[in-house]
Amino acid sequence: MVNSKSYFSLNGQPVVDHLPLSLLSDRGLAYGHGLFETILLHQSELPLIDRHLSRLVCGANILNIPVKSTLIEQYLNLFLEQLESEAITDGVVKVVFTAGVGGRGYEPPSKIEPTIICSYSALPRDIAIYRKEAIAVRYCQHRLPTHCALAGIKHLNRLDQVLARNEWSSEKFQEGLMFNASDHLVEAISANVFMKNIAGDWITPCLKHSGVSGVMRSLLMEEIFPACDIPISVAQITKDQLAKCQQLVVCNSVKGLMPVHSIYNHREQLVKSLLIEPQTLMLSETLTALFPPYR
Amino acid sequence: MVNSKSYFSLNGQPVVDHLPLSLLSDRGLAYGHGLFETILLHQSELPLIDRHLSRLVCGANILNIPVKSTLIEQYLNLFLEQLESEAITDGVVKVVFTAGVGGRGYEPPSKIEPTIICSYSALPRDIAIYRKEAIAVRYCQHRLPTHCALAGIKHLNRLDQVLARNEWSSEKFQEGLMFNASDHLVEAISANVFMKNIAGDWITPCLKHSGVSGVMRSLLMEEIFPACDIPISVAQITKDQLAKCQQLVVCNSVKGLMPVHSIYNHREQLVKSLLIEPQTLMLSETLTALFPPYR
Repeated sequence: MVNSKSYFSLNGQPVVDHLPLSLLSDRGLAYGHGLFETILLHQSELPLIDRHLSRLVCGANILNIPVKSTLIEQYLNLFLEQLESEAITDGVVKVVFTAGVGGRGYEPPSKIEPTIICSYSALPRDIAIYRKEAIAVRYCQHRLPTHCALAGIKHLNRLDQVLARNEWSSEKFQEGLMFNASDHLVEAISANVFMKNIAGDWITPCLKHSGVSGVMRSLLMEEIFPACDIPISVAQITKDQLAKCQQLVVCNSVKGLMPVHSIYNHREQLVKSLLIEPQTLMLSETLTALFPPYR
Repeated sequence: MVNSKSYFSLNGQPVVDHLPLSLLSDRGLAYGHGLFETILLHQSELPLIDRHLSRLVCGANILNIPVKSTLIEQYLNLFLEQLESEAITDGVVKVVFTAGVGGRGYEPPSKIEPTIICSYSALPRDIAIYRKEAIAVRYCQHRLPTHCALAGIKHLNRLDQVLARNEWSSEKFQEGLMFNASDHLVEAISANVFMKNIAGDWITPCLKHSGVSGVMRSLLMEEIFPACDIPISVAQITKDQLAKCQQLVVCNSVKGLMPVHSIYNHREQLVKSLLIEPQTLMLSETLTALFPPYR
């Protein structure tokens, strides 16, 4: 069952009415000193939970936040029970993991006690469209900075994504493509990208200098592309290559794999129309066969 | 009177006990979609409030958050009354201004209703030392990215400062110097910098590509340097120049102007010792003469 109400837990306890005052001093709110994972909830299960937790632990190490993935998993399980008691079995569960309260300014406290927030929201209304049909994307003007120390992890400093998403309000485009200062494609605003280039090779951008290393991206690279016997490699993608590409897909761990039918530039002029090819269909069908929650 | 307890207000209302649930969905916590100002409270007044509000409004425009500075001022005044009723007249007031609750993922809601949080904390214990004596600084290894869209404003995405401050825990250093990828000095972790170079010219780094444009920096440039009849210009500062500099000062709107007596590199090796020169004393004395709260 799906529910449009919101539900929360804070450090393993259901939040029913009010919150503790300490949240106003949380380093997550003050500095974005924390991480988050947005996880598909399907039939009371979190299908890619291991990949999500492993990225969270990796990010926590980079941000110097002591992390016990077993504790997060325990709080998530308690939260799923809380949802089940409300007859909620499907939707999106978000976990926010912060460096908690304290410290002197930017200096973290000597003993960090993380804050762990679980929240539930219904699946996006248009998820069926995203999964079954192709989408339109447009270029964003806002550039991702080169930021090796923070590249790959899903931290709470997301102003780049907010500013990029602010560039349009029309329902015509379902995603925005984000570039770095050298005009190389990095990712979509809330998804990673895979492109089949003019030579017929599938490639995806390197994320060592910027971007988020998506859970669905790693699943596609490690399991789905190999299962389809389609080679996949990491390579630079220019706007010129996008204009000549054979296929483009974007993906994330909530919506799965979304083929792109049209690419527009930031002036909303059509750059490229695409017909979905058998290889893209095979990738999509293999994903849903091996991971039915993405059906 | 100074108090070591914390006090808060949320959207103009004193927060006594609990917080509304909505704070868990705030875009400030989710994405750092917001701004903050840390303001000196002196004898129940906020000395540089106009400059703080003007920077906040500038940042809100960049982050597409509708802002009424009169409303923020009104909430701040209410908060000062709340503090006075507790006999608190001196310390630090922080205002956090976020894009509020709502939106679909990164997409902001069609009507943004900002969250305005005021909080109080006591002055740093060591503020007297900072103001009366010189400090030691060290280089940070963590680099500030080039990020023109967000440069200058005091937004809530502050992982760069958190990671830089994480590089040392010794009390030996009072500030860290932050560089960009080209090894040019940008700022200190929570302060701006002014340097007197080998030629005897005072310079401060350009903040168009990264860094926070400090309220005390602008006060020094617009009022204090001119009042001392000392020319000040914006110019690049390399590590080589730092090693040969005649004077270095860092400044922020809470601590005022802090001369530097020693510069260390990130390996904590001494790069340069400095004796405080008459020009630095004149700048400091002019600031405290014109703005007694910084005495």
